[in-house]
Amino acid sequence: MSKNCVNVGLIGFGTIGAGVVKLFSRSAELINRKSGVKVALKKICDIDIKKSRGIKVPKSMLTTKAADVLNDPEIDIVIELIGGYKPAYDFVMAAIKNKKHVVTANKALISKYWAELKSACMKNSVEIMAEASVGGGIPILRGIDKGLAANRIKKITGILNGTCNYILTRMSLEKMDFGAALKEAQKKGFAEADPTLDIEGYDAMHKIIVLSNLSFGANVREKDVYVRGIKDTNAVDILYADELGYVMKLLSVAELDDKGINVRVHPAFVEKSRLLASVNYEYNAVYVKGDAVGETMFYGKGAGEMPTASAVLSDVIYLARNISGEKKPRFKSAAGKGAAVRIKKLDDVRSKFYLRFSVADNAGVLASIAGILGKNNISIESVIQKARHAHEKVPVVIMTYEAREADMKRALKKIDSLEVVKQKTVFYRVV
Amino acid sequence: MSKNCVNVGLIGFGTIGAGVVKLFSRSAELINRKSGVKVALKKICDIDIKKSRGIKVPKSMLTTKAADVLNDPEIDIVIELIGGYKPAYDFVMAAIKNKKHVVTANKALISKYWAELKSACMKNSVEIMAEASVGGGIPILRGIDKGLAANRIKKITGILNGTCNYILTRMSLEKMDFGAALKEAQKKGFAEADPTLDIEGYDAMHKIIVLSNLSFGANVREKDVYVRGIKDTNAVDILYADELGYVMKLLSVAELDDKGINVRVHPAFVEKSRLLASVNYEYNAVYVKGDAVGETMFYGKGAGEMPTASAVLSDVIYLARNISGEKKPRFKSAAGKGAAVRIKKLDDVRSKFYLRFSVADNAGVLASIAGILGKNNISIESVIQKARHAHEKVPVVIMTYEAREADMKRALKKIDSLEVVKQKTVFYRVV
Repeated sequence: MSKNCVNVGLIGFGTIGAGVVKLFSRSAELINRKSGVKVALKKICDIDIKKSRGIKVPKSMLTTKAADVLNDPEIDIVIELIGGYKPAYDFVMAAIKNKKHVVTANKALISKYWAELKSACMKNSVEIMAEASVGGGIPILRGIDKGLAANRIKKITGILNGTCNYILTRMSLEKMDFGAALKEAQKKGFAEADPTLDIEGYDAMHKIIVLSNLSFGANVREKDVYVRGIKDTNAVDILYADELGYVMKLLSVAELDDKGINVRVHPAFVEKSRLLASVNYEYNAVYVKGDAVGETMFYGKGAGEMPTASAVLSDVIYLARNISGEKKPRFKSAAGKGAAVRIKKLDDVRSKFYLRFSVADNAGVLASIAGILGKNNISIESVIQKARHAHEKVPVVIMTYEAREADMKRALKKIDSLEVVKQKTVFYRVV
Repeated sequence: MSKNCVNVGLIGFGTIGAGVVKLFSRSAELINRKSGVKVALKKICDIDIKKSRGIKVPKSMLTTKAADVLNDPEIDIVIELIGGYKPAYDFVMAAIKNKKHVVTANKALISKYWAELKSACMKNSVEIMAEASVGGGIPILRGIDKGLAANRIKKITGILNGTCNYILTRMSLEKMDFGAALKEAQKKGFAEADPTLDIEGYDAMHKIIVLSNLSFGANVREKDVYVRGIKDTNAVDILYADELGYVMKLLSVAELDDKGINVRVHPAFVEKSRLLASVNYEYNAVYVKGDAVGETMFYGKGAGEMPTASAVLSDVIYLARNISGEKKPRFKSAAGKGAAVRIKKLDDVRSKFYLRFSVADNAGVLASIAGILGKNNISIESVIQKARHAHEKVPVVIMTYEAREADMKRALKKIDSLEVVKQKTVFYRVV
């Protein structure tokens, strides 16, 4: 089947749905180019089509009847963003039976009905894609399935729930107790009014089931997973963790050995030197161990309107490219317009700078250096000057505020020509 | 074109080449399943076909003539692993002109001849894939091109050279000077006898050019890139960095704004709280900022036989799947055999444990607890017991060595039934 337009229908016009519509509209050209075919959003279905979502949509595109999407013979791809088991299951199954590909962010649905959905897709020769169901915008399903395609996956350790990670991070870094940190998370929009699904570990459980089924080709059910949440976390254990060289994280683990796989969700002490220990606040990360690649980690925002829309649309682009039968080399669809992208000179780049001067220990030196920096639009953030032995050269370290490369080059040339400056000044950019 | 066997020819039987042959042989079933077609390694070309590579290869497969691979009409995909500009360029161009797809790990080649290779591929309707050219086994090119397909990429910041990162890590963590750290890197195989390409920043430059051309659709040339290596790094600046709250890393940066892109390679001070600051030793990481996804990071081993082979074969699988015309739903090629994967019970999982007991301050308590742990095959690594107020309940914290879940469950049940234990024992797994 080779088509010149791929039509998409969206069911669920909530926060993520609105993000998808926004990204569709603002990046239409990019999406078409990457897909090798025009991709059009044709219909949007929600029970409430009156409420404003911060994006203009033609009235004719909106409907309250899912059947208008599911039975439209022109629609090739159905995006399901209503969440939960019912009626999402019926909508997704109807779409598959009507030979439509499905993109979903619904981790509850695909963790519970993986086997059924998989077999319905096989029977109808369509695909179900769910990049957005785990790790928000992080391309983790594609990373494992395609990027690590030649590996036998041995172990997955994920920080998969942003709410819990936010709470545990605030408890660790600011010695808050659980209740106060949960309130902060709710205030910032990182936790729901009813946070049960998150803090009791069930959201993380859905996600590790999805990852396990994909990575190990397993068929893990909820009853197979040990789940312990973080709602009983006592600040005192986080203090002990710190003292012993650990931080507490809610981990989702799936591990394969010759006896099979074990899948579990629980808070754990993670050694501070491990990269996972530095994944903080609402961020997610998935550590994957493969037999060839060794240890890898994928990191990013685990939720939110635009990160999740990014994942949904990466699936749409993948499917559109397949549907269209696009077979031209990938450069055709690279992100940009080739030589049209201009190269910007370093002179215009701005950053903070670290400067180490070797100077004669002379009262006026710092003033002359500061004067030259000032004349070149460079402000000083801090100064370290340690030893002061008369008549020896001493190091003076300066951290600047953001400055232009060209200004810094000019200033250093001038400073290095001063007689009191004994060596070429050492500089590093600071990020 | 729909084929039932995809044939692969390999040019370059060095370390990475040997890794590719090993992975091909040990994971044949997986590769075929993921590709949806049988993938066969048909010919291997190298100037030296006598030396042992630690893997058995039929003599008939080996040749010293590249033409035997390039002109074989049955070969669909050529893997180029000889590196450098010449004769790699001629081989790759010949393969493309013979309508063969190319997989390469050659960053020098594709950073310098990107425009030429791209246009030759377009003309001949074949693809060139180079996942292994940047970040070893990390699926970073696919991550950006496919996983973040719906994003305009704004900024890339990479730690792309394992040699430099190893040296800077040793200098930071062990206060070594540059020369000593370089020697260590050479001893461990992380630096070449002549480390110029690495420590002067040219290897990192090649890689950031590849990433820039892919992510921004640009055509960056070597002369466009500011390059500063690490060979003049003075230990004193690393100490100052530490004092000021930073670590020094060799960064490769490509940044887009409305004036165009700037591409640069230089050592920089990175704030300790940033995840990039925790990427240590020979590991690589690429931080990518997209307009929808926000900040993401990809992490893993940037070099080595098997990680690089993992990347090469992920490209081969991608191409084989396209060549075969495989269009069945992806589950067909998932990594495993569905319900055949057994679920392993938590009881058999082993980890270290943190235990916090609330006990009466009684001289014999610790002995009873230790006794019960010992009887259940649990050894104690360390104990913290702080306040000792007579007749109050006091916390006792124990870190154990690795223990079985079932043993721990049994031990805790027994301990919690002791009269001197005043509260249910708090436990966390330690990773």
